[in-house]
Amino acid sequence: MLITPVLLCGGSGTRLWPLSRKSYPKQFVPLMGEETLFQASARRLAGQTDSLRFAAPMVLTNSGFRFIVAEQLQAIGIDPGAILIEPEGRNTAPAVLAAALRAQAEDPGAVLLVAPSDHVVPDTAAFHAAVAKGLEAVAEGRLVTFGITPAHAETAYGYLELAALPGPDGAAVPLKQFVEKPDAARAADMLAAGNFKWNAGIFLFRAADIIAAFETHAPALTAPVQAALDQAQPDLGFLRLAPEPWGRAEDISIDYAVMEKAENLSVVPFDAAWSDLGGWDAVWRGSGPDAEGVVTSGGATAIDCRDTLLRADSERLEVVGIGLDGIMAVAMNDAVLVADKSRAQDVKLAVAALKKKGASQATQFPKDHRPWGWFESLAVGERFQVKRILVHPGAALSLQSHVHRSEHWIVVEGTAKVTVDGEVKLVTENESVYVPLGAVHRMENPGKVPMVLIEVQTGAYVGEDDIVRYEDVYARG
Amino acid sequence: MLITPVLLCGGSGTRLWPLSRKSYPKQFVPLMGEETLFQASARRLAGQTDSLRFAAPMVLTNSGFRFIVAEQLQAIGIDPGAILIEPEGRNTAPAVLAAALRAQAEDPGAVLLVAPSDHVVPDTAAFHAAVAKGLEAVAEGRLVTFGITPAHAETAYGYLELAALPGPDGAAVPLKQFVEKPDAARAADMLAAGNFKWNAGIFLFRAADIIAAFETHAPALTAPVQAALDQAQPDLGFLRLAPEPWGRAEDISIDYAVMEKAENLSVVPFDAAWSDLGGWDAVWRGSGPDAEGVVTSGGATAIDCRDTLLRADSERLEVVGIGLDGIMAVAMNDAVLVADKSRAQDVKLAVAALKKKGASQATQFPKDHRPWGWFESLAVGERFQVKRILVHPGAALSLQSHVHRSEHWIVVEGTAKVTVDGEVKLVTENESVYVPLGAVHRMENPGKVPMVLIEVQTGAYVGEDDIVRYEDVYARG
Repeated sequence: MLITPVLLCGGSGTRLWPLSRKSYPKQFVPLMGEETLFQASARRLAGQTDSLRFAAPMVLTNSGFRFIVAEQLQAIGIDPGAILIEPEGRNTAPAVLAAALRAQAEDPGAVLLVAPSDHVVPDTAAFHAAVAKGLEAVAEGRLVTFGITPAHAETAYGYLELAALPGPDGAAVPLKQFVEKPDAARAADMLAAGNFKWNAGIFLFRAADIIAAFETHAPALTAPVQAALDQAQPDLGFLRLAPEPWGRAEDISIDYAVMEKAENLSVVPFDAAWSDLGGWDAVWRGSGPDAEGVVTSGGATAIDCRDTLLRADSERLEVVGIGLDGIMAVAMNDAVLVADKSRAQDVKLAVAALKKKGASQATQFPKDHRPWGWFESLAVGERFQVKRILVHPGAALSLQSHVHRSEHWIVVEGTAKVTVDGEVKLVTENESVYVPLGAVHRMENPGKVPMVLIEVQTGAYVGEDDIVRYEDVYARG
Repeated sequence: MLITPVLLCGGSGTRLWPLSRKSYPKQFVPLMGEETLFQASARRLAGQTDSLRFAAPMVLTNSGFRFIVAEQLQAIGIDPGAILIEPEGRNTAPAVLAAALRAQAEDPGAVLLVAPSDHVVPDTAAFHAAVAKGLEAVAEGRLVTFGITPAHAETAYGYLELAALPGPDGAAVPLKQFVEKPDAARAADMLAAGNFKWNAGIFLFRAADIIAAFETHAPALTAPVQAALDQAQPDLGFLRLAPEPWGRAEDISIDYAVMEKAENLSVVPFDAAWSDLGGWDAVWRGSGPDAEGVVTSGGATAIDCRDTLLRADSERLEVVGIGLDGIMAVAMNDAVLVADKSRAQDVKLAVAALKKKGASQATQFPKDHRPWGWFESLAVGERFQVKRILVHPGAALSLQSHVHRSEHWIVVEGTAKVTVDGEVKLVTENESVYVPLGAVHRMENPGKVPMVLIEVQTGAYVGEDDIVRYEDVYARG
């Protein structure tokens, strides 16, 4: 049976700061292994097995992340069926409803698998097997959720109480009720009982069934979400939902809006490993601590440490821990977190403190991702700034000028097509171009490989906002 | 009475890594406040008071640090009497003897104050008062050492046992004996006794008296050290001791060679604050911990921490600690140390581990100091490197060429005089120069302010050793 994956990736948490920042949150970062969590999620829901086949995914994200989504899918060779842009975050209920309404319009029998894009599920085959079990229940008109078999008495998750103990066949079991985040004693009881599972927020259903459930349990949502879809604007391959009706949709989770009220819920038990990486302690746990409880990554070295996470998450960075017990240290070139392991849920305090002191590290990733590629600042002086800029093949920056700065460009990889005051030329590795103050200029990569250049800006003011845009293929202001 | 300061600064410890590295050790780093420890030491031994007057200092260092020494003295307006370069480290005895022989040759009545250049003595007036007390004993032919009144039962220092309790006048007291580093119980006993002081390795004596002591207690040292002086080569204002005789001098400390044997030692008690910053715990203690025992510096933020040191020692770096107790974290852009506070003496293990894995951070400071200024690498790619280069006013790089790389120079501060294949031109802020592969070139700063330029190297190999030198005002190979 054909399944359309619906990947939710508009969120941006702070609990994995400094690696996850508002400008570039954890789903887009290679937290575990080579691929990003979003890429791994998309890959997990692609291809086919004997019993199921995935259609091109539908992705729901926000405007700021749209080019990251497109770029990361392209990098792993997955063509998105659609990338829907939420004008503002309204939690999961409106997003899921929008996906369902759109899918049903294209195929009245559409089946959707809705999943967050920042979870870790190492055993794809086990997950596919669970989805196949779910399809049996979906065929009977059930709304299926996946219940993770608890690995420990976790107090940070909601639980699903099953109406019966799961059978050895792994088939879906009717849901008895949702259970709010428990205290430690209750969590231990549920761990022992066997018919309680973690609520992972992964769902499988026919579009028609979830739309019907919305109509029954959250009828006010349908009109604004349908209108946001009907008035949506295509934009360079993205579909921008209409802001005005979208803003009228209630800001509510699908659990509160529908799932906790619906009578036709079933739970497929999932016994294999799963993590939502809800904090650095979860990353530690998911990274396979050694016999001493130590996890290191990147250029990190642990000496006489126990129960400790040490990460070096930038190039050319060495981190050394000595005699640590129960510590999490995550270092980047521009920001370092050192926290007691029991305080994983308080990392948001670091972000709040940095915001208060006006430090850009609170929200801004060192690499600033743009539709055409990315740049990072290498050095800033009184009257100059040095940037490394990467432009994707075929991409172009806007036609622009600056009031306060001149720019020197030196191409160090690939070939650039450069326009300065109407004159166009190709500039290749080891060649340079000078852009005088006030000149109208554009940089493009006409080639087949990424183009990297070093930009040296000089002038009295070198801020990002000294820019006048004349034309922009990405329709930015 | 005129006193010639003798500053010893050839050493390079590893216990304050990553801020102290072999290429740029702690005495040259602004560890506490704006000035470096070496600068603060030189300033403490300059000028005059009612009872004493300092001559220009004599500095003993090694070849690698000579330009750092000259630059840091110039920056605080202190003109060195002489900078003696030890061809190799032979511990303190040969160094002090060389200083004494040289001083006596110039002035038979010379009085020397020998001091390490990496100690912290916040109260300069108290120190001067102690030196004045010492002069009284020196006038009677005594060798004076300064004994720090213990602030706690330290086990990492040697002690000086005084023949009597010091009087209220602070006058020198004859030494009874040296005491090796004690265990904790013995240290506590000595703390309670009142006639035991820490041996800080700071000495005051007439050159003639210490030379006589060497002749009595370490007679084999005089001939090679005198020969190293006699055959010394002046070099751009430095005095290079002759390597061959210097290598024959025994590698031994002045305590072992002379002080522990001499009969004419006196101790001036020093009651004010002092630290040799022998580890990050000492830096923590000397930095004035707050009521919770927390010290932060640079862009460091402590949240719910106790008994903790958090330092951000690079520009544009934020460090946040959460819930830490007894932790020392010192972060730079390229290296981070996180250690339990009880393990301050084990930081050398971090350096050893990084050496073993071949990481340059073990020994190399990000800024590479050269006679003409410094450079730092901003970015390295497959076939390129970007550097920020600062050239001091009046300084010049060697006339050189490269076999594997071209260079683009963009001046961002000041004015450069550039020679490329015989052609000379001035290049000022916002101007660029291209140096083709193989071209013979030189960069100079003819101006009165530092010149900063960004260098973009491209080529198949961008290592420091791709250099052919034709002329070098600093007489390097």
